[in-house]
Amino acid sequence: MVSSAEMRVSSGKRTQFIPMTHLIAELASRNGWRDGVLTVYVPHTTAAVTINENADPDVARDMEWFSDELIPRNRHFRHSEGNSDAHIKASFYGSSVQVIVRDAKLWLGTWQGIYFCEFDGPRERKVYAAFTG
Amino acid sequence: MVSSAEMRVSSGKRTQFIPMTHLIAELASRNGWRDGVLTVYVPHTTAAVTINENADPDVARDMEWFSDELIPRNRHFRHSEGNSDAHIKASFYGSSVQVIVRDAKLWLGTWQGIYFCEFDGPRERKVYAAFTG
Amino acid sequence: MVSSAEMRVSSGKRTQFIPMTHLIAELASRNGWRDGVLTVYVPHTTAAVTINENADPDVARDMEWFSDELIPRNRHFRHSEGNSDAHIKASFYGSSVQVIVRDAKLWLGTWQGIYFCEFDGPRERKVYAAFTG
Repeated sequence: MVSSAEMRVSSGKRTQFIPMTHLIAELASRNGWRDGVLTVYVPHTTAAVTINENADPDVARDMEWFSDELIPRNRHFRHSEGNSDAHIKASFYGSSVQVIVRDAKLWLGTWQGIYFCEFDGPRERKVYAAFTG
Repeated sequence: MVSSAEMRVSSGKRTQFIPMTHLIAELASRNGWRDGVLTVYVPHTTAAVTINENADPDVARDMEWFSDELIPRNRHFRHSEGNSDAHIKASFYGSSVQVIVRDAKLWLGTWQGIYFCEFDGPRERKVYAAFTG
Repeated sequence: MVSSAEMRVSSGKRTQFIPMTHLIAELASRNGWRDGVLTVYVPHTTAAVTINENADPDVARDMEWFSDELIPRNRHFRHSEGNSDAHIKASFYGSSVQVIVRDAKLWLGTWQGIYFCEFDGPRERKVYAAFTG
């Protein structure tokens, strides 16, 4: 069985890690996804998705800050839109994550949460999900 | 249903992002893959696969250039083949991507394309694909 | 068909790439996984999983060393546990990999092996696996 769905996420800053575990969990519950693998997919080229700590918000802030330190906006890039750094960040973090679903629950580690990674906001964004079970 | 296939890609430079969306789309079409999740997999340790902008070729060039800036070839590496940078780049970008297939079409974002990432070319390379539907 | 399982891995250093292809292959064999896609998933936020060279151990050592060079422990991080670098490394390498299974064998490239990536050890860790076939 394969089933897919689409969601919306809004960002408020240029670089921003936005928690979205609850959105994915609700989606899985609403669709009755019980046992399988869930692909969370970002259909943008200056945004990504990652799994990281869900407890202390300073972790997400450190990730935002360090991403901009390591891959700064103003380098000798050619791309005329001036957001090549955001494209590179998107590929470093990646366009999708996989989450195992067991017994109708996301089988995440205790401290894990799913984050939408905005690198060229603020913008309205989409997230796709597909479940194979 | 699970189905898998293999393709060939040739690179012409040491570091090169090669568009291959059309190859994957043709493969999906030829195999009749309609609704499911497609895993595109690179069976090499100095190459990768990523999803990024398909419009302005300067984005791919900026990604090639910045990858070599951030992870230069000549550091104090031990590996005697002299391509440790390529191994590191391969793991940063990753050995696979997932693409959702809906109604026999790759469900990519408007500006997204699939790229083979060569980090130790020029070489003849393989790409694997598996479809779960 | 979806089937999932759990394993243990122990690390002995703060940053350590630990080969675990044999563990995954045994798990696939024990569960009778024949044709499908295997998701190897790390349920931690300071560890990851990657696929890279299985031959010369210097490649893994170079990856450990360069990861610590590029993302050092002592930067101006806010997170009070002092391991923000490990969280960032975890997201750069990623929380899961996909491996295609064909004819009851992991369809890896000749030089590929699966590595558990420890970034905040030594610790006892878990690895999840799910098979869709």
